[in-house]
Amino acid sequence: MSIVVQKYGGSSVADAAGIKRVAQRIVATRKKGHDVVVVVSAMGDTTDELRDLAQQVTPIPPPRELDMLLTAGERISMALVAMAINQLGYQARSFTGSQAGVITDSAHGRAKIIDITPGRIEQAIAAGDIAIVAGFQGVSQDTKDVTTLGRGASDTTAVALAAALGAEVCEIYSDVDGVFTADPRIVPKARKLDRVSTEEMLEMAANGAKILHLRCVEYGRRHNMPIHVRSTFSQKEGTWIVPEQQGAAMEDAIISGVAHDKSQAKITVVGVPDKVGEAARIFETLATTAVNLDMVVQNVSAAATGRTDISFTLPREDGQTAVTALAALQEQVGFDKLLYDDQIGKVSLIGAGMKSHPGITAKFFASLAAAGVNIEMISTSEIRISVIIDETQIDDAVRAAHTAFDLDDSDGEAVVYAGTGR
Amino acid sequence: MSIVVQKYGGSSVADAAGIKRVAQRIVATRKKGHDVVVVVSAMGDTTDELRDLAQQVTPIPPPRELDMLLTAGERISMALVAMAINQLGYQARSFTGSQAGVITDSAHGRAKIIDITPGRIEQAIAAGDIAIVAGFQGVSQDTKDVTTLGRGASDTTAVALAAALGAEVCEIYSDVDGVFTADPRIVPKARKLDRVSTEEMLEMAANGAKILHLRCVEYGRRHNMPIHVRSTFSQKEGTWIVPEQQGAAMEDAIISGVAHDKSQAKITVVGVPDKVGEAARIFETLATTAVNLDMVVQNVSAAATGRTDISFTLPREDGQTAVTALAALQEQVGFDKLLYDDQIGKVSLIGAGMKSHPGITAKFFASLAAAGVNIEMISTSEIRISVIIDETQIDDAVRAAHTAFDLDDSDGEAVVYAGTGR
Repeated sequence: MSIVVQKYGGSSVADAAGIKRVAQRIVATRKKGHDVVVVVSAMGDTTDELRDLAQQVTPIPPPRELDMLLTAGERISMALVAMAINQLGYQARSFTGSQAGVITDSAHGRAKIIDITPGRIEQAIAAGDIAIVAGFQGVSQDTKDVTTLGRGASDTTAVALAAALGAEVCEIYSDVDGVFTADPRIVPKARKLDRVSTEEMLEMAANGAKILHLRCVEYGRRHNMPIHVRSTFSQKEGTWIVPEQQGAAMEDAIISGVAHDKSQAKITVVGVPDKVGEAARIFETLATTAVNLDMVVQNVSAAATGRTDISFTLPREDGQTAVTALAALQEQVGFDKLLYDDQIGKVSLIGAGMKSHPGITAKFFASLAAAGVNIEMISTSEIRISVIIDETQIDDAVRAAHTAFDLDDSDGEAVVYAGTGR
Repeated sequence: MSIVVQKYGGSSVADAAGIKRVAQRIVATRKKGHDVVVVVSAMGDTTDELRDLAQQVTPIPPPRELDMLLTAGERISMALVAMAINQLGYQARSFTGSQAGVITDSAHGRAKIIDITPGRIEQAIAAGDIAIVAGFQGVSQDTKDVTTLGRGASDTTAVALAAALGAEVCEIYSDVDGVFTADPRIVPKARKLDRVSTEEMLEMAANGAKILHLRCVEYGRRHNMPIHVRSTFSQKEGTWIVPEQQGAAMEDAIISGVAHDKSQAKITVVGVPDKVGEAARIFETLATTAVNLDMVVQNVSAAATGRTDISFTLPREDGQTAVTALAALQEQVGFDKLLYDDQIGKVSLIGAGMKSHPGITAKFFASLAAAGVNIEMISTSEIRISVIIDETQIDDAVRAAHTAFDLDDSDGEAVVYAGTGR
């Protein structure tokens, strides 16, 4: 039988009713003749509640113990899902990340999957059982300690397991119908995409689309695993994430979607002496703090002063770390001052068709200008154009671009969208 | 350094404040120069809440999955205790039952410890860390599945671990000061005992005293491990459970305490044909249902009828199972009817001094008679006399016996007792 891996997010298993609904769905897939392996997140807000509990005990929980704590969340949901399936007359067995063979490095809180050794899952399948696996967690190869893979990483668990088991498809269930041309909360006329290429999905995930975790898409691409993003609450087909060559149906659309990201901040190092190696010193320092930089812009040096400004964007949550590290460097490098701005956001136009269609950039910028949006920074890839703008103008910018590139749903039917994206 | 194993019950770690208090206590023990290994229960009512959640999903949860679910409880508390200790500047690491080497059989929900292989705990101790271990849980030797040891079995985990590690003492912390001569909620003048022999404690635990789990006491006796029962909320010495020969101080007291048990029921099989093998058939049937019988009484056969009545007591929770099994036997055995009575209770007088002091039984029965208590059944051991009486008369019977054997606290100071016994 072909194996289907299904992943259900926290909102799908938020309570007993949700768990029973998910169990019905799993059993229905089994009845269609598939072996089913299920990856679950923790119920609803459990992970956040456990984090709160840790905060009540200590402001800085040791990462090993925080992982031990948080992994209780999936343990609860997976056992309950297994029970609900048994109640429907099918055998199900739940497995922790460790039991499922999710082998990781030792970086607690953001561990990377090194290997999947799903012997017990394969045994369960061979015995005719439905295997329920805890998402988000694994076991360290070196220390045998329990690890977590970082927020939203249950998607990654699912795709990695699907690849290791040679599954036919990895289905990612949440409370939204699939991948949309833009966030329907901002653009009511956003359309659900039937197919998206892996490359486009990577750009979307990296630029603010929350529907799929970036590492999950990367993993799927590397292992050529088809991903089907769909809703727990309907039977409709969702969005298929497929290799580019299979995306024939996408040829006619130049632009697949407009993504936005409100989690970014901008740091400007003002008055850096325009000498060889000064910029390098700044970025080396940032590299040691493990801060992920996104865009970087160095202003043209004003010959009169011999000084230049360097701006870059980074996740807001890393802002404090970066500013502290740079401030310590001020005397050594001799720059004038640091500016920190977290009232910015990023809007990205994404589409594989960009490669063969000139003029996209001009049209994008013209649509933003017409909407009165001022561009602060620009970055591009082969299939993406991103701009940094004022945070308050993000919604206007997304809508303007969406309309300019004919992405609005022509049926005139607004999408009903109440989801959280997870 | 000598090793001290401490076990903290659910009421001691019910919230963040409780967890911090426990951490202080653990660190204080460490500062006195001991290596400390801690066994924790789940926080407050967590286990019951998880059971409720399971009930919402299915009326009969598969035992393997129920164990997977329930073990999330200790995972949460142990990680939080470890965090709180780290916050105080001491290294602590938490371990699941499986990680701590608690090897059990495969009887989910009531697994028995087969072996303790505490390699990781010993490594943690050698590294100078405080080890926090999940109580109540282990891992099946055969299936490698997570198991639970049954309600209240964290005490057993603690004693078993203490024995395996060669600890100096196993301290059992709860919200009461120690073992009392009777339940202070019934007898306000009950006294805390400084020392109790293992044999007496076994009889108390088996006959309704909830302060210590029976299996824990058995384990302690078998491995000669001193157990110190004390309160998390005070620095006072509690009660030491010690081998009989060490109980010199107990010699003067003939009776150590009065235990009671309101969890029993009585079944009477009326009109059993007085033939060889009929009673055997009844008890064989009960044995196959795994019901634990306590007292058994067969009335003297009335020669005129050739029939006899057989009565026995058992835990109320097994009542339905036993009645169903016996009813199926009625035609075959040919008895008249079954009577089921769960309005009974057991009062037990316990004391090692009984062996060498005649007249205890007479004095006990006289005190009950004076209190107007009617005795339905009697059973005795070398150091215990138990009676089955009407449930409504239990409190009166306990008080009467307590006074008759001079157990009342002569200070006249009523014990302040608000604990749940756990």
